[in-house]
Amino acid sequence: MNADPAAPTADGGITDSPPPRFGVNYTPRVGWFHSWLDFDPGAVAADLDAIAALQLDHVRIFGLWPLLQPSRTLIRPAALSDLRTVVQLAAERGLEASVDVLQGHMSSFDFLPSWVTSWHRRELFTDPDVVGAQTELVEALGTALSDLDNFSGLTVGNETNQFAEPGHPDRQQVTPGQMGTWLQRMDAAAHRAAPSGRHQHSFDSRAWFDDASPVLWEHATAVGDATTVHSWVFTATDRLRDDPDPPLEALADYQVQLAAAVADAPGRPVWLQEIGAPPPWVPPDHAADFLAAAITPVLDTPQFDGVTWWCSHDVSPALADFPELEYSLGLIDSNGQVKPAGRRIAELAAEQRRNPTPRSPRRTAVKLSPVAADGTGRAANAPGNPVWQAWLELTRAGRSATLIRSDLARDENQLGRRGITEVIDPADIA
Amino acid sequence: MNADPAAPTADGGITDSPPPRFGVNYTPRVGWFHSWLDFDPGAVAADLDAIAALQLDHVRIFGLWPLLQPSRTLIRPAALSDLRTVVQLAAERGLEASVDVLQGHMSSFDFLPSWVTSWHRRELFTDPDVVGAQTELVEALGTALSDLDNFSGLTVGNETNQFAEPGHPDRQQVTPGQMGTWLQRMDAAAHRAAPSGRHQHSFDSRAWFDDASPVLWEHATAVGDATTVHSWVFTATDRLRDDPDPPLEALADYQVQLAAAVADAPGRPVWLQEIGAPPPWVPPDHAADFLAAAITPVLDTPQFDGVTWWCSHDVSPALADFPELEYSLGLIDSNGQVKPAGRRIAELAAEQRRNPTPRSPRRTAVKLSPVAADGTGRAANAPGNPVWQAWLELTRAGRSATLIRSDLARDENQLGRRGITEVIDPADIA
Repeated sequence: MNADPAAPTADGGITDSPPPRFGVNYTPRVGWFHSWLDFDPGAVAADLDAIAALQLDHVRIFGLWPLLQPSRTLIRPAALSDLRTVVQLAAERGLEASVDVLQGHMSSFDFLPSWVTSWHRRELFTDPDVVGAQTELVEALGTALSDLDNFSGLTVGNETNQFAEPGHPDRQQVTPGQMGTWLQRMDAAAHRAAPSGRHQHSFDSRAWFDDASPVLWEHATAVGDATTVHSWVFTATDRLRDDPDPPLEALADYQVQLAAAVADAPGRPVWLQEIGAPPPWVPPDHAADFLAAAITPVLDTPQFDGVTWWCSHDVSPALADFPELEYSLGLIDSNGQVKPAGRRIAELAAEQRRNPTPRSPRRTAVKLSPVAADGTGRAANAPGNPVWQAWLELTRAGRSATLIRSDLARDENQLGRRGITEVIDPADIA
Repeated sequence: MNADPAAPTADGGITDSPPPRFGVNYTPRVGWFHSWLDFDPGAVAADLDAIAALQLDHVRIFGLWPLLQPSRTLIRPAALSDLRTVVQLAAERGLEASVDVLQGHMSSFDFLPSWVTSWHRRELFTDPDVVGAQTELVEALGTALSDLDNFSGLTVGNETNQFAEPGHPDRQQVTPGQMGTWLQRMDAAAHRAAPSGRHQHSFDSRAWFDDASPVLWEHATAVGDATTVHSWVFTATDRLRDDPDPPLEALADYQVQLAAAVADAPGRPVWLQEIGAPPPWVPPDHAADFLAAAITPVLDTPQFDGVTWWCSHDVSPALADFPELEYSLGLIDSNGQVKPAGRRIAELAAEQRRNPTPRSPRRTAVKLSPVAADGTGRAANAPGNPVWQAWLELTRAGRSATLIRSDLARDENQLGRRGITEVIDPADIA
């Protein structure tokens, strides 16, 4: 799993990438993630059969932290074994599997063990005892899975930044420096335990677009083996309020270009790890079209490594209290019927396997607004601002464009390796 | 289970009670309550064997709310079944079993399902959806257990008041009136589901002694079929700081007399549902003596129904983050060895079975300080205050005394039914 899918070719380009991966975030059909409490390999096998039938090649799997580590000093062997079983069941169906460790946050619900909440509340990212235990859990999972051929690697946790963002009800106080240290510790633990895995961390779009997020661009694009992108249109719609026809399907491509542009290493893979079609921003009968319209533009990107749709199975309406949008994000409904979006991704994946979109550097890059070392300036690069507008104008004109960091805009080596021949300053076309 | 153990005898007294019950709060030896996640009937059977060998006749059993009801609309059949299995295993060893439903709080840890925390935080006692779901869980557990002969009843939850007390990190806002309504709803649900059970609720000593507690005396002594007493000396030691030789072993008796005194119904049973010997207040090598010294004085009390020691098994030192005192409260250590306190309670229980202490009304009662309808005035009845001092002085002088509510101090019916012939006003002996 260590091959760099966007390694430079002999001419210095990065067009020699393998075909992109198509997969799905696995949300168990019966019982959602509560099903870990009643682990049923037969039910998992049936879910994975349905996923494999959609021509997908990988799944992203989520444990629940309180079930894996109910005491700071108790990592449950049965929980590790159950996760291993899911990865093995995936292997039997030709699916690669990555595993997120610290959940943490899932679909509006926070799952934290009792030893970090209430009377035991303490800092998730800096308390030495907490961090030590998290490290042990990452290592334990890595060790439990490292010998499985289809195990692709760990993600530290699903959008772990959420616990440290303004607005969280129990916000953790953490500086960007502390966050970087924490991410590096978790990443190092993953690599120690599973040296051949490709490990990464994940975060929501605040890391890209909110100046206050303690996950900086450098954390996003330098810690771990790939840069993850979670693309949710509802995070951009407020910013696009003034656009009469907001091009929501362009957000994923913009974020992927941004992830590619921000990295110091031109060849660092970008994994579109979460993208979904949330109502009402995407009407349910438009989900399949949205899926194709959002994914297709990304496919030429040399650094693009794969897409993992959110999610496999609709949340059952029998489970209460999810935000309304969460009930219909699946490729497969809660009765097991494939939905139009499921058929569409199957077609797209099969077509890309037969006839992959050529990887091709975008010659034109829009210059990003400068971002300071402390992360200030990120918001100026969010959808709705001049950088986005310039990039979108080019896109709408049929000129597929990428992005470039302002401090790299005259770096011949970077320009050369990314194949960029034209840099556009948004100020020049405003 | 509906027999009133302190029903008035023909002469209007209440001395015809059955022998008191001796039991223990069951804390699984391996994995503490996290063991629900790896439910092992064999391990439970071994624990219950050890408990039965201590001449005990009952256990109090605790579920964990997030495992019973991980979604507001998902009560796990397997969790109900596991609890039923524990009650059945207890039956096979001649042990009655009561079950606490809403944990809630255990030994400093709070266990709340994700649908009432963080982004989903809402009022535990008043939110209609939450209360509805709690009602369903109480009913489901009652229904699951009601046919078992040794199932004695439900407790709403372990010290549920803690979530509503000042100082809780996520304090729930609830008035005494709302708390009373909530308790009555839970009690009604228990009775609907298991009509022959004796059901109750529980609370820590703040309900008795803190004016701010939303659980009022009337809730303690009128909701449910018995009044529960949790007696922990550390709750009184601050108040007894000025006493050169604080009689910590007298606290349980004082609380039992208080519970008997506060009830409108003179015959309402009082269950000493929790009492333990916490270090450093009780030095470990004094635990057995403390046990005998604290329980023995209570045994003559007509309303006294039984005692349930906290707890069966020491928390393993392998489990981190418990307050230090919690590791050594067991009758049995974490390796399965019976401790001196275990032998002492076995002797006491066997002796009481052979030769029960006669139930005998205490003829002298100290008049309590008045308490207003809103609960104001309770603190004046806490240890260290004149009521306590007067009661203690009598006790130390060998004159076993009870307590009486100030508004009942001239109620001939109440005095007669409780067998009280002398009421002492603390002011008269101050």
